[in-house]
Amino acid sequence: MSEKKRILSGMRPTGPLHLGNLHGALANWVDMQDPYDCFFFIADWHALTSNYEDPSATTGYVEEMMIDWLSAGLDPEKSTLFVQSLVPEHAELFLYLSMITPVPWLERNPTYKDQIVQLDNKDLSTFGFLGYPVLQAADIIMYKANGVPVGVDQVPHVEITREIARRFNFLYGDVFPEPDAILTKTSKILGLDRRKMSKSYNNAIYLSDTPDEIAKKVSQMITDPQRMRRDDPGNPDICNVFEFHKIYSDKETWQAIDPQCRNAEIGCVECKKIMAKSLIEAMKPLHERRVHFKARPDRVREIIAFGSEKARTVAKKTMEEVRQAVKIRA
Amino acid sequence: MSEKKRILSGMRPTGPLHLGNLHGALANWVDMQDPYDCFFFIADWHALTSNYEDPSATTGYVEEMMIDWLSAGLDPEKSTLFVQSLVPEHAELFLYLSMITPVPWLERNPTYKDQIVQLDNKDLSTFGFLGYPVLQAADIIMYKANGVPVGVDQVPHVEITREIARRFNFLYGDVFPEPDAILTKTSKILGLDRRKMSKSYNNAIYLSDTPDEIAKKVSQMITDPQRMRRDDPGNPDICNVFEFHKIYSDKETWQAIDPQCRNAEIGCVECKKIMAKSLIEAMKPLHERRVHFKARPDRVREIIAFGSEKARTVAKKTMEEVRQAVKIRA
Ligand code: SF4
Ligand code: SF4
Repeated sequence: MSEKKRILSGMRPTGPLHLGNLHGALANWVDMQDPYDCFFFIADWHALTSNYEDPSATTGYVEEMMIDWLSAGLDPEKSTLFVQSLVPEHAELFLYLSMITPVPWLERNPTYKDQIVQLDNKDLSTFGFLGYPVLQAADIIMYKANGVPVGVDQVPHVEITREIARRFNFLYGDVFPEPDAILTKTSKILGLDRRKMSKSYNNAIYLSDTPDEIAKKVSQMITDPQRMRRDDPGNPDICNVFEFHKIYSDKETWQAIDPQCRNAEIGCVECKKIMAKSLIEAMKPLHERRVHFKARPDRVREIIAFGSEKARTVAKKTMEEVRQAVKIRA
Repeated sequence: MSEKKRILSGMRPTGPLHLGNLHGALANWVDMQDPYDCFFFIADWHALTSNYEDPSATTGYVEEMMIDWLSAGLDPEKSTLFVQSLVPEHAELFLYLSMITPVPWLERNPTYKDQIVQLDNKDLSTFGFLGYPVLQAADIIMYKANGVPVGVDQVPHVEITREIARRFNFLYGDVFPEPDAILTKTSKILGLDRRKMSKSYNNAIYLSDTPDEIAKKVSQMITDPQRMRRDDPGNPDICNVFEFHKIYSDKETWQAIDPQCRNAEIGCVECKKIMAKSLIEAMKPLHERRVHFKARPDRVREIIAFGSEKARTVAKKTMEEVRQAVKIRA
């Protein structure tokens, strides 16, 4: 057992990962691999909470997601990379935690309240949807994680997990540490159309996009909307392409572009070409790993099985403690 | 695979079984063993839904309950006798069914509404308590049971199970038969004090009571409350002891007592002694089996392990079908 603090985080396999996911979460995960004992899981059961009517749309992405993770630099030798449904102990812990979680705690969960209001599809009001913070709590405390890397909007979820862990300990004795939310800085990258990058807006650049696809998508990006013609001066401060430059191009490159744009000395077409080149270059190591793993589906499945078995060993041990604490075994 | 229809029923291990349980359910189960392919389970997880604060009070009875079952004539060679928590697949199916069960179906469950109103302990309003019909549905459809033997008050539970099974089939394809409620005739036997026989009223005769304990309890039974003195005439029609006579004594015996009671020719003390003798005699084979198994705890544990393994084989097969239907495996 390492002396490192343990963290845990997961992603729903709802589609191929894009630059928004990379900079919003995945890059942080990669950085955490050395300082922490990391458990990262593909939350296929969680995907069902909102997609139960067409599960194939989500659960089909499990292996692709693992390929994205490996491409981004997650390392199965450093971190425990696993699939939730391959550790059925999560369902059993979910059951035990269900028994002690008051319904009002779940009803006041902000995400639940939001989504119930937002979605006209009232069928979403399923028992499993109401209970997804309970499943999330099970995911986290199963591994006795000390921390959960989250964005600021997810802090309430970690708070419910802490409350549930505390209640379990109060009723049955000290089994679980209360995990801390670890706030991660997330650079919010916008989509081609300047809205939030998202699969459902069809405005995303995927980790799986080829250089040609990237070049094409970049050529379609919305720039400074005030700049109608080549001769109009542009404003990099409000241009999404320029935001990308600042991430992917050399400092000299974008510092040179700034005044050129303002003086209409560079056109958006050319500017985008430069940025596309930088982006493709930055993605090169990721793409190379992607090609490597894409050609080795057996190796990917092996990594999934290995990580899930590793996770399951921990989960089985925890469940033994839980059953004893709950006195379900004589 | 037998051609018999499969039935499934369970009991919460909330205490030693009494004559009310025997005549209310257990005797029916024994009779069903030949005509049906029977699955009977000890619902230790269900016991947690209402007893989560002190689980030891319930889960400690698992082995005692199996001894009661075996004493009553349940036969591990005929029926599959198992313990719910030893088949963790129930928790996994519970999770999948959670995802598709609308909360309003559960809120309108009459038992839920009743109990929430009745109990001042509002902590009972846990997520698991709300969802116990979902767990019950999982228990039943896991084995693709065709029928569930129930009393008339439990028909709504079977109806929710049918609805959940139908919804699963509609969403993911035909996996589960819709189980029928099999109404069982239950002779309602009253307690020593003429209230419903119940552990909590402290008015029960247990299957584990010795002949001496039975005799003593019978001597304390309330008879015709109008009959104050030995010389007063009695009325067997409203006498609980006479009800016991009709179950446990020969027809000649109780037919002779009837006029004797009405004419004050027999005293209640004597009448009870006769009934106690009949009851002790009727319980003799049950008591003999009880002594046998009580002296063989290893054999009881073996029976539990054997039945649970048998049940688990079926459950694993069902879960494979479920995972495929829900497309949780690529
Ligand atoms: S030249 Fe570049 S920075 Fe300026 S508006 Fe066009 S794309 Fe944006
Ligand atoms: S004599 Fe027997 S039947 Fe009559 S009141 Fe007494 S106990 Fe009941």
